[in-house]
Amino acid sequence: MDRKSIRELLEQYKEGKISIDEGVDALSQLPYENLGFAQIDHHRELRQGFPEVIYGEGKTKEQILAIMKSLAEESRHNVMATHVSVEKADFVRNELPDAVYDEVSRILYIEQKRSEPVDETRRILVLSAGTSDIPVAEEAALTARLMGNAVDTCFDVGVAGIHRLFAHKEEIVKANVIIVTAGMEGALASVVGGLTDKPVIAVPTSVGYGASFHGVSALLAMLNCCAAGVAVMNIDNGFGAGVLAGKINRMR
Amino acid sequence: MDRKSIRELLEQYKEGKISIDEGVDALSQLPYENLGFAQIDHHRELRQGFPEVIYGEGKTKEQILAIMKSLAEESRHNVMATHVSVEKADFVRNELPDAVYDEVSRILYIEQKRSEPVDETRRILVLSAGTSDIPVAEEAALTARLMGNAVDTCFDVGVAGIHRLFAHKEEIVKANVIIVTAGMEGALASVVGGLTDKPVIAVPTSVGYGASFHGVSALLAMLNCCAAGVAVMNIDNGFGAGVLAGKINRMR
Amino acid sequence: MDRKSIRELLEQYKEGKISIDEGVDALSQLPYENLGFAQIDHHRELRQGFPEVIYGEGKTKEQILAIMKSLAEESRHNVMATHVSVEKADFVRNELPDAVYDEVSRILYIEQKRSEPVDETRRILVLSAGTSDIPVAEEAALTARLMGNAVDTCFDVGVAGIHRLFAHKEEIVKANVIIVTAGMEGALASVVGGLTDKPVIAVPTSVGYGASFHGVSALLAMLNCCAAGVAVMNIDNGFGAGVLAGKINRMR
Amino acid sequence: MDRKSIRELLEQYKEGKISIDEGVDALSQLPYENLGFAQIDHHRELRQGFPEVIYGEGKTKEQILAIMKSLAEESRHNVMATHVSVEKADFVRNELPDAVYDEVSRILYIEQKRSEPVDETRRILVLSAGTSDIPVAEEAALTARLMGNAVDTCFDVGVAGIHRLFAHKEEIVKANVIIVTAGMEGALASVVGGLTDKPVIAVPTSVGYGASFHGVSALLAMLNCCAAGVAVMNIDNGFGAGVLAGKINRMR
Amino acid sequence: MDRKSIRELLEQYKEGKISIDEGVDALSQLPYENLGFAQIDHHRELRQGFPEVIYGEGKTKEQILAIMKSLAEESRHNVMATHVSVEKADFVRNELPDAVYDEVSRILYIEQKRSEPVDETRRILVLSAGTSDIPVAEEAALTARLMGNAVDTCFDVGVAGIHRLFAHKEEIVKANVIIVTAGMEGALASVVGGLTDKPVIAVPTSVGYGASFHGVSALLAMLNCCAAGVAVMNIDNGFGAGVLAGKINRMR
Amino acid sequence: MDRKSIRELLEQYKEGKISIDEGVDALSQLPYENLGFAQIDHHRELRQGFPEVIYGEGKTKEQILAIMKSLAEESRHNVMATHVSVEKADFVRNELPDAVYDEVSRILYIEQKRSEPVDETRRILVLSAGTSDIPVAEEAALTARLMGNAVDTCFDVGVAGIHRLFAHKEEIVKANVIIVTAGMEGALASVVGGLTDKPVIAVPTSVGYGASFHGVSALLAMLNCCAAGVAVMNIDNGFGAGVLAGKINRMR
Amino acid sequence: MDRKSIRELLEQYKEGKISIDEGVDALSQLPYENLGFAQIDHHRELRQGFPEVIYGEGKTKEQILAIMKSLAEESRHNVMATHVSVEKADFVRNELPDAVYDEVSRILYIEQKRSEPVDETRRILVLSAGTSDIPVAEEAALTARLMGNAVDTCFDVGVAGIHRLFAHKEEIVKANVIIVTAGMEGALASVVGGLTDKPVIAVPTSVGYGASFHGVSALLAMLNCCAAGVAVMNIDNGFGAGVLAGKINRMR
Amino acid sequence: MDRKSIRELLEQYKEGKISIDEGVDALSQLPYENLGFAQIDHHRELRQGFPEVIYGEGKTKEQILAIMKSLAEESRHNVMATHVSVEKADFVRNELPDAVYDEVSRILYIEQKRSEPVDETRRILVLSAGTSDIPVAEEAALTARLMGNAVDTCFDVGVAGIHRLFAHKEEIVKANVIIVTAGMEGALASVVGGLTDKPVIAVPTSVGYGASFHGVSALLAMLNCCAAGVAVMNIDNGFGAGVLAGKINRMR
Repeated sequence: MDRKSIRELLEQYKEGKISIDEGVDALSQLPYENLGFAQIDHHRELRQGFPEVIYGEGKTKEQILAIMKSLAEESRHNVMATHVSVEKADFVRNELPDAVYDEVSRILYIEQKRSEPVDETRRILVLSAGTSDIPVAEEAALTARLMGNAVDTCFDVGVAGIHRLFAHKEEIVKANVIIVTAGMEGALASVVGGLTDKPVIAVPTSVGYGASFHGVSALLAMLNCCAAGVAVMNIDNGFGAGVLAGKINRMR
Repeated sequence: MDRKSIRELLEQYKEGKISIDEGVDALSQLPYENLGFAQIDHHRELRQGFPEVIYGEGKTKEQILAIMKSLAEESRHNVMATHVSVEKADFVRNELPDAVYDEVSRILYIEQKRSEPVDETRRILVLSAGTSDIPVAEEAALTARLMGNAVDTCFDVGVAGIHRLFAHKEEIVKANVIIVTAGMEGALASVVGGLTDKPVIAVPTSVGYGASFHGVSALLAMLNCCAAGVAVMNIDNGFGAGVLAGKINRMR
Repeated sequence: MDRKSIRELLEQYKEGKISIDEGVDALSQLPYENLGFAQIDHHRELRQGFPEVIYGEGKTKEQILAIMKSLAEESRHNVMATHVSVEKADFVRNELPDAVYDEVSRILYIEQKRSEPVDETRRILVLSAGTSDIPVAEEAALTARLMGNAVDTCFDVGVAGIHRLFAHKEEIVKANVIIVTAGMEGALASVVGGLTDKPVIAVPTSVGYGASFHGVSALLAMLNCCAAGVAVMNIDNGFGAGVLAGKINRMR
Repeated sequence: MDRKSIRELLEQYKEGKISIDEGVDALSQLPYENLGFAQIDHHRELRQGFPEVIYGEGKTKEQILAIMKSLAEESRHNVMATHVSVEKADFVRNELPDAVYDEVSRILYIEQKRSEPVDETRRILVLSAGTSDIPVAEEAALTARLMGNAVDTCFDVGVAGIHRLFAHKEEIVKANVIIVTAGMEGALASVVGGLTDKPVIAVPTSVGYGASFHGVSALLAMLNCCAAGVAVMNIDNGFGAGVLAGKINRMR
Repeated sequence: MDRKSIRELLEQYKEGKISIDEGVDALSQLPYENLGFAQIDHHRELRQGFPEVIYGEGKTKEQILAIMKSLAEESRHNVMATHVSVEKADFVRNELPDAVYDEVSRILYIEQKRSEPVDETRRILVLSAGTSDIPVAEEAALTARLMGNAVDTCFDVGVAGIHRLFAHKEEIVKANVIIVTAGMEGALASVVGGLTDKPVIAVPTSVGYGASFHGVSALLAMLNCCAAGVAVMNIDNGFGAGVLAGKINRMR
Repeated sequence: MDRKSIRELLEQYKEGKISIDEGVDALSQLPYENLGFAQIDHHRELRQGFPEVIYGEGKTKEQILAIMKSLAEESRHNVMATHVSVEKADFVRNELPDAVYDEVSRILYIEQKRSEPVDETRRILVLSAGTSDIPVAEEAALTARLMGNAVDTCFDVGVAGIHRLFAHKEEIVKANVIIVTAGMEGALASVVGGLTDKPVIAVPTSVGYGASFHGVSALLAMLNCCAAGVAVMNIDNGFGAGVLAGKINRMR
Repeated sequence: MDRKSIRELLEQYKEGKISIDEGVDALSQLPYENLGFAQIDHHRELRQGFPEVIYGEGKTKEQILAIMKSLAEESRHNVMATHVSVEKADFVRNELPDAVYDEVSRILYIEQKRSEPVDETRRILVLSAGTSDIPVAEEAALTARLMGNAVDTCFDVGVAGIHRLFAHKEEIVKANVIIVTAGMEGALASVVGGLTDKPVIAVPTSVGYGASFHGVSALLAMLNCCAAGVAVMNIDNGFGAGVLAGKINRMR
Repeated sequence: MDRKSIRELLEQYKEGKISIDEGVDALSQLPYENLGFAQIDHHRELRQGFPEVIYGEGKTKEQILAIMKSLAEESRHNVMATHVSVEKADFVRNELPDAVYDEVSRILYIEQKRSEPVDETRRILVLSAGTSDIPVAEEAALTARLMGNAVDTCFDVGVAGIHRLFAHKEEIVKANVIIVTAGMEGALASVVGGLTDKPVIAVPTSVGYGASFHGVSALLAMLNCCAAGVAVMNIDNGFGAGVLAGKINRMR
């Protein structure tokens, strides 16, 4: 409700078109009505260019199927669900033969629109510190790809053998956004953050044992990254990193 | 050291210009020499367009003065130190009259190059949930400004009175990057993250008491943000948020 | 033991009806005898209008059966057990055919007295932020219903798409007590708490992964809720929320 | 601004006492007043039946003064600020002689409307386990009183000498809502919760040392309270308990 | 090997029944027997009045059998192993038919010396707050019994229905030592600690969910017990409580 | 008020020295005296054999004075307050010249009854691992002494130089109860617990830095003590250890 | 590839046995071999004197096989993988019959070079506090052995029966480096650290329950070790302890 | 007590030189007497070549003075105290003019024996990640120097500008032992650990803010170091690192 609407309301009341109680009601609700709820919704659809993504954990296979179906019908974009087990994926794919399941990242998706990157020269690079971090890295990479980005990956380049990382200097330099996935002490984020002036997104993984506390050691390390301005995601949240990288990558 | 260098080295050895021991030495050091250390350094200077920033905590006033002096002489860019107390700032400003101290954000800086934003149409918006979050918000805002960005601020728009936030819908819509600073339960990041498709950077603050555990409650809330792709910084790290926002804002 | 009892005791002693040792014994136990243990018990039964509720976890199926049987015989009210697995429920229902098992909330109950709400105009509203929070939300709703309250539910209205919440403004406005169940960052409690002047009960759920730490992130967020006066329950404690809502709802 | 004020404004406009532009101005400002550093939520009174309460920590004395002034002018209700130090209170009281400072609870308030309880028969009882919990208990009690409730207090009735608690059985029985403040092991909430069928609000305090971890031991104990349906607040959050008790107490 | 055995050995040697080498051998092995994987502390009986107790977790069934056999042969006292699974117990009992397995407390024992309490008038009382705490309570009770104490138990007397506890006032008064086992908020220890002047041993149990954190809530509550001088054990450590109660109970 | 006082009161009444109303008054006040801010538990002496002990932290000097005065008048036993600062002690001693302040343990006490141990042959031994643990050790020792026990102390016998401990073997052997105070890794409790068959009470202290987390490392170590049956107290709770040792020591 | 291999390669090239392109190829691949999922660090042998060790957790059996094969071909040293399950070990051993699997330590290895210790007089001693710590102790011992060290072990010598430890005084005295593995309260590290002037490496194990928090109690205890200069490893990290001991042991 | 002593004792008893009771006494104490306490002490003095080091925190200035005096008189070695404040140092130096105070490391020491390193070719290298880590680094360096080692330092070589570290490759290569001090994310330890085959000792520092949790982030990172075999010390424990480095450095 803007100034114009308030003016109209005042006039309607003066002219006796609405009672004083109707006026009080309308005005006391002003802060909420001001929102234009449906518009915001529409707005998101229009601008994010991607329907809601399904978080598969804690949903039944029937729920996942129903939501995917509905989204696929309503949208021309790709549709995806994360954290999907093999069993649930099999069930859904039986009904939706177009659905594809990536076992490493545990993403189930329907590629309605050929996911060709809008711009091949703007590339997202996904690094993993070790082999065990690959599932999280692949979740980030596939998410970004399905949202229309050009993505490169480069795995097992942790800092204990730092020459393995430096061997990929060229990919690092040409990347537009870099995602770093690392468990244990998560030091890769700090080293990469110091090598580039591009946005770096750090995803701690739950890889490790003992005092890694299921990813807490990497999470704290990344939050305290001595390279300035590194973005941190939740533990194992490759999906979120892919989304953020995509948002940044399409800026111009 | 690239393939060409290795080839030359092999030839030099064959021609007897270097002994076998010299050859072994050079080659066994290959992974490090491959780096071109000084080049990387130069590269950073060239592309980051901003000299190193001084973390003032745990440094003496003499150390801060010396580093600022050196940086100001070597660079044509703005020079800044964060986490600087009034006492240290006074000491430095006695020697460096060009230095300016912002008491709210506790940043001490020398504006060598008039910090006019490169592009007024690409704006960073800094939100604070409460009045007590303003110092962290201002640290983010001033950092981004000194790095050449157009910055807007909008304080005390926490979710307990959500109409205060929605009243700023226009600033939110027109912003290119949004920084959200919030203590306590940090819910503002989730709400803002759901309203925009632009990158959102969440900075938990240590505002609160009891079970806020000096910012841990806000940190965890932001890491678990239900809006996808929100970047999280360390508690009270307004500086890092400003740097990341600046990196994203100059992409095109 | 009140002043009158002490007076009588003193007189009995003076009159020789009790020995000095009997007097000392009676008086040295005064603080405990003062309690009227059985009366308190009776009092609770009388006023709470609901027999003890069985916590099914860590009890054998035989124990649950025995307690339910005994309660059902002694009381005319509904009888319920929470945290009951399918296997235990099947075992009990074999013996007690009147028992009903709700698989979502994992509550096993006997509806001895038709659970029609005492007052249809005083309604409890149970909200869930996501689909995965529904089991906890249903535990709260069914508990409140079995205790004689009118209950409405409204699921998947988390703050990342805040228009989904605002679409239910009318239910929120007409509710007498509101229960909010949310995992991850638990922000829904803050937003709802700011929209209403009715008591809000927040139940953090263990929904999430990584740094949600099995509900700790939502718990801390809710304890630090910027909306004043929100009641917080233990993680996943839908039952407790239902009980508290019922206690509040019957006040007049 | 409450419903009555809106009604008056509408009438003034109809009667020509204010122009349409004055009306629009007044109403479009309805939700909040922007002081720059703070966006005062005048609308809260409408939504919550009490004006915004100022959290004094992390605000300068000038900021507290400005907000109190604005609230006192816009509202006919009592105005209060919590967590206010003696120094800040002295400064504000110099300018606002009507302001009263309660040193125990550290609340600064202006009693604009004589805080006589709406209903003397509906009483809130505030218990404290020890003498050191009194400041938190008093914060709860004064908050509830300023919001128009009849409040009783009963201090130092912790469970280590349980007869001290049982001596107050009558107050417990006649209370409409009970607030329990306790540090250390917080067991008082469990015992009281088992004695009454009225809503119990538990406030853990930071009283204790060593493994009390500044209130965490009491907080966890209260969240795990074996008496069903006890509402828990943040550590030391007497204010929140007072607000919630007030919300419940006015239900009918 | 107790003092009596040493005495016999010395006499046998003096009387020439064993050679000096046999004597040296026997005595130099006195402190322990080395099984390779375990160094059995036969000497403990001398120091502690009871042979070493086997912690069954993390030992193979063969290891438990070997150690029990060795202990049973070297000692005239009862022999016991804690934390023993049904499978391991079955295996050992096949070889050692005298061994008895208590499924509730998961203790496997050989009663070599009829465990009649030395002194029936000095009784240890074991309380449990709930039904789910019984396994820990029974571990404490059986341990104390096997060490020669008179033990009473009294279960499900938690503070939420405090009259249940007070109904057992007589057992509490006549007990020499009291063990309290409780999960969740562990408040029973505080109440019992305030009712008696006898030593109270508190054992937190892992009973509960959510913010009970597998017994941490009860542990912290008990450490912060407002009743002075309550002894606290590790979470679920009924065995330790039984040992300590036994040590105290035999003092005179 | 002890059993003897009740007996005297009854006799005085029978003999007509006091009226029935005076008798009722005296006896109905028996459990406690209400000072407003504190409800003094005079009855505790009867239940626990020692009057209530004042926890000085968080009480004003006036409050401490009032409670000590009241206790000293009502009891014939020693009166003590713990955690008392020098300033508060000075204030109280001005008014109560009999009060003595021990600066090391920060205990303020009035020795009404010459604290000669009931039984010199039953001794409590208090050990400290380091010099910095002495304040806690002295708190335990003085508490036990004031309750009528014979106490020995032996400081700085930590396990890093284990011969220092073994040099005190005789004190250890002849002690009836042993209190071990230790910070850092708290290993002394385990070693002492393995050397004796007498009850051992372990008090973790907050001595240490970094990952000692103000006593948490010692607390966890003691809770996990491999010597069976060691009683653990809260961090720095020397007072509780003294009370427990006294309770155990008087058993016979 | 070690220095000797580089030397041979240079000579082969000089002698014309390989072309310059073959030489360049071989040398540019020197630092690592890219298997796609893993970048094997063949160069590590040169830098660290031992080939890369495979962390078996989170790798498929096919990945472990491929990496072991590649390492075994490229190196003349022993090859090992830690944290390998029986199933994975069986799979690999089917393909690589030379591979040996140690079930206790869960290490899979190929002994290419007879692991005879370089120097029998320089011995590493591995102690375990209990029987349950043996797997971690064996991981340390086998790692050190495969790296060419003389290793002794001595198990179940925890401090609760300290004479068991002192019985091994001679092994302790003659050891060059000592590894202590202990769970629960980890006190063995402190006692051993005080008995020797040789480097002591402490490995906390996850042995214990309740407040041992899966090894945290032992970890904190060891970090706070009152014996100066004890090296601490991650929880259960026997492998790391073996590596560090080996590095120290070969110094001269 | 060895086999020979037992033999002698048996013979003495047979010959009647000792009574049976004396024999039993001696033998039942066997495990302790076996230790030769004083010998161990002497042994340590003899072999460690360094007297006890005083931990200055929690000791009075008088205590520090007394211990330093005693140590300086009894020993010909250097004497040192750590964690000493300026005030305490001034007090001690007044009495002991030979004492030197290093303000950066807060070490107070008496250099009785000119601390010339035994072997200049065996060098310890101390690295610091940042300027703020220098106090801890200097504590390590000075400790090692006073114990007779050649020490080099190299500060502010953190991984965010990794070329700064690589510029010191030569010092790293020629060092015999390396100490890494780092706060925040502690990544320097991992990078250095991967570059050298020499023992690396990692000291987390409390440098940082927010989620560094006073050094916990660096501690966890170092414990989870992906470079194998890095020794970790307590947070800020430069002293321990110096001692361990010294122990390793003198091995040969």
